[in-house]
Amino acid sequence: MRNLTLLTDLYQLTMLNGYFEKNIHEDIVVFDMFFRKNACNGGYTIVCGIDQFVDYINNLHFSDEDLEYLKSLNLFSDKFLEFLKDFKFTGDIYAVPEGTVMFPNEPIVTVKAPLYQAQLIETALLTIVNFQSLIASKASRVCFAAQGDPVFEFGLRRAQGPDAGTYGARAAVIGGCSATANVLAGKMFDIPVIGTHAHSWVQKFDTELEAFQAYSDIYPDKCLLLVDTYNVLESGIPNAIKVFDEISKKGYKPLGIRIDSGDLEYLSKEAKKILDKAGYTDLRITASNDLDEYTISNLKSEGATINSWGVGTKLITSADSPSLGGVYKLAASYKGDILEPKIKVSEDPEKINNPGYKKVVRIYNENNKAEADLIMLHDEKIDDTNPLTVFHQTYTWKTKTFRKYKIRELLEPLYLNGECQYNRRSVLEIKDYVKSELNTIWTQYKRILNPQVYKVDLSQNLWDLKKNLIDSKKFL
Amino acid sequence: MRNLTLLTDLYQLTMLNGYFEKNIHEDIVVFDMFFRKNACNGGYTIVCGIDQFVDYINNLHFSDEDLEYLKSLNLFSDKFLEFLKDFKFTGDIYAVPEGTVMFPNEPIVTVKAPLYQAQLIETALLTIVNFQSLIASKASRVCFAAQGDPVFEFGLRRAQGPDAGTYGARAAVIGGCSATANVLAGKMFDIPVIGTHAHSWVQKFDTELEAFQAYSDIYPDKCLLLVDTYNVLESGIPNAIKVFDEISKKGYKPLGIRIDSGDLEYLSKEAKKILDKAGYTDLRITASNDLDEYTISNLKSEGATINSWGVGTKLITSADSPSLGGVYKLAASYKGDILEPKIKVSEDPEKINNPGYKKVVRIYNENNKAEADLIMLHDEKIDDTNPLTVFHQTYTWKTKTFRKYKIRELLEPLYLNGECQYNRRSVLEIKDYVKSELNTIWTQYKRILNPQVYKVDLSQNLWDLKKNLIDSKKFL
Repeated sequence: MRNLTLLTDLYQLTMLNGYFEKNIHEDIVVFDMFFRKNACNGGYTIVCGIDQFVDYINNLHFSDEDLEYLKSLNLFSDKFLEFLKDFKFTGDIYAVPEGTVMFPNEPIVTVKAPLYQAQLIETALLTIVNFQSLIASKASRVCFAAQGDPVFEFGLRRAQGPDAGTYGARAAVIGGCSATANVLAGKMFDIPVIGTHAHSWVQKFDTELEAFQAYSDIYPDKCLLLVDTYNVLESGIPNAIKVFDEISKKGYKPLGIRIDSGDLEYLSKEAKKILDKAGYTDLRITASNDLDEYTISNLKSEGATINSWGVGTKLITSADSPSLGGVYKLAASYKGDILEPKIKVSEDPEKINNPGYKKVVRIYNENNKAEADLIMLHDEKIDDTNPLTVFHQTYTWKTKTFRKYKIRELLEPLYLNGECQYNRRSVLEIKDYVKSELNTIWTQYKRILNPQVYKVDLSQNLWDLKKNLIDSKKFL
Repeated sequence: MRNLTLLTDLYQLTMLNGYFEKNIHEDIVVFDMFFRKNACNGGYTIVCGIDQFVDYINNLHFSDEDLEYLKSLNLFSDKFLEFLKDFKFTGDIYAVPEGTVMFPNEPIVTVKAPLYQAQLIETALLTIVNFQSLIASKASRVCFAAQGDPVFEFGLRRAQGPDAGTYGARAAVIGGCSATANVLAGKMFDIPVIGTHAHSWVQKFDTELEAFQAYSDIYPDKCLLLVDTYNVLESGIPNAIKVFDEISKKGYKPLGIRIDSGDLEYLSKEAKKILDKAGYTDLRITASNDLDEYTISNLKSEGATINSWGVGTKLITSADSPSLGGVYKLAASYKGDILEPKIKVSEDPEKINNPGYKKVVRIYNENNKAEADLIMLHDEKIDDTNPLTVFHQTYTWKTKTFRKYKIRELLEPLYLNGECQYNRRSVLEIKDYVKSELNTIWTQYKRILNPQVYKVDLSQNLWDLKKNLIDSKKFL
């Protein structure tokens, strides 16, 4: 396992050194990770990457080489570097299960730990969870647009480096993709891999027909042919049909074709006509070439006869929205036995964090549809035998009362006193969980353009705490 | 070193298996990597990541675990998997030196190797070089906008995974950034790291003033204070000045302030006024918060008094253009001793590749400014004692004749018969080379919006070859 202990911003370490010098490094604090806007301009976000965050925490240690490097920076006291030698995470971490659908401003990871530990892990937590959540969310949007057709992740060559390609493939499958072309991701995460041939295969042979024949010789039972090396309708499809006829005679069932360029709507419709006429009515017609949820929606609504989608660059980079802005904010700090809530004020009201040690509760109706989330203080309880009234955070006169409802606490213990509580699931299990999560969400939140805003409210206690803290200017 | 041998698309391996079965896997072929559009909608692209590509090639081998995994896919013959056991790159690779400024359609890496080797390495080459070239190019644009002010790379938490943050930081420094906040990148690549403190430091203390005092106690000679936790002008700057006064009395020179939110133009101007009035006229005024080359240009032109820039998300992801579309195309294939040029035709003329085994020559004027590039066949020569006329690829009547000029071949041997010819340079050496490269390029190609298009022409021989190949439909 890679040692990612130094995968952090330098200021985390200068602060750690400062906390240590001021002897406040052992103070217990509470940090929350949350995001302010959903991934991909969408109506929800799928939390992903918890598995890799656990690997990171489990492997957190400063090697001799790390310490030597830090010493060379001439920023840290020897005593501090000596202290880092025994670094081990000993705190509590709560996180939502990987694959949970979450909304803005809700804690998705809450860390309660000695200050120096909670501070150090900020950057890696954000790097890992921001990216995978972004790609899982993007993939779920692309799959939503594909209306049940299989979507394949093809983006490795345009990914932002090897990890982005590999963890991105993992996240894409969790978000709904059927398989990836990335072999390493297949091996690392036990997820389905897919692949046939490239244009270079066709170019290598003297003619396209010879290339197709050679391919079908070797993979007669997996014969999916790329038909756009020269000309889809005049060359690719006719040659493919010749080969399909040949293997059909030998008792094999052709798989289909792939089109990687040109006008996908027109070409797919024409290809379908020709294939149907030749008796191949149920082939896979795969399209690839700069697709995303918007182009797929468009092609679908124009009646393109594509029934399988290879999505590359724009999925693996989430091209139109290539980052999820997850942040990690100090929410509380113990002074002796007293937990002091902490706030970061900003001229931009959206940037004011929710103070205190908190939890998140999801309210479901009788049909298991999520109706609203409630952020509460950690020790608050809901009596679900009584009606529950929630109110809007800004327009507080907007209220909603639930009478028949179920509640679920979303944050679960990941570490308690440094002990890992995490039950690892396979990627395909997490993918199934995402599917069930998405089933609990009304379609209006899944809409690709201008989704409805899901209700995330604060409990009265938390709302009062926040208001009082903003009003009191004592933090200035 | 990580084993990235399986960092490839599955179709590369299904093709390899096919070539092997058809016994054409040892045929010598030529592939080119090139891009069709510059990175970041700019006028040039800085090639970056060659170092990591060399690491990849040097470490290329199928481990027992890799082969076991491939066997489990039930796609490959045992004989083929046995063959992969001894996989070793034995061909030639030519590449431009890392940091070279390049333009669309020019080969930046050319591979001449047995088919199965040349095919396998496509994906990893593209993953590695596309991303780092993207970020180096983005960084150079951001630095161009900053007009000589130092630019710091702050993006790790929003990077697309650990590699993106780390190799991205490397590329950002190569492209012109002064330092990165990413400690792991600092250690791995021996590049400067930078960092002070976060909002959480300020929040942890009872008052902002106490937090600043604590910071200056520990880092009196590195006192750069983040002033926007509560209110920049009413709290942050006045408190910073108190602390600057205290450390000044002790003989230390304050470093400056950082503003991470709000109206950076207004705040920087007001902050500068207050600081000047207090006698601190030469402090570093650092701004961060969703900056890129466009916002920096704007702030500069509006007279913002920022003189140091922390650039995060939008640099490390190249947010407005998050991929470089580098491709890898078969250009030629030996049939016995005869080198057959290969072409991929497309309805989109820009997607037709330049066939044949090629090289790239840059033409410089007497003042060492690059005037045009010429893509030629590998064995063509230029007699630079004679005038040289180049012509436009589409509008062939557009010609330009050079009389006094120097030429330089851009592609250099990286591997010859599998032997590595690469001379590793440090990241800071490559950064210096980029600076000298950018000095050879006229400003109109560096303009941030609507840069001029640099001339990339074909030699007459190559142009004829391409035209004949398109005209002959024999490849259909």
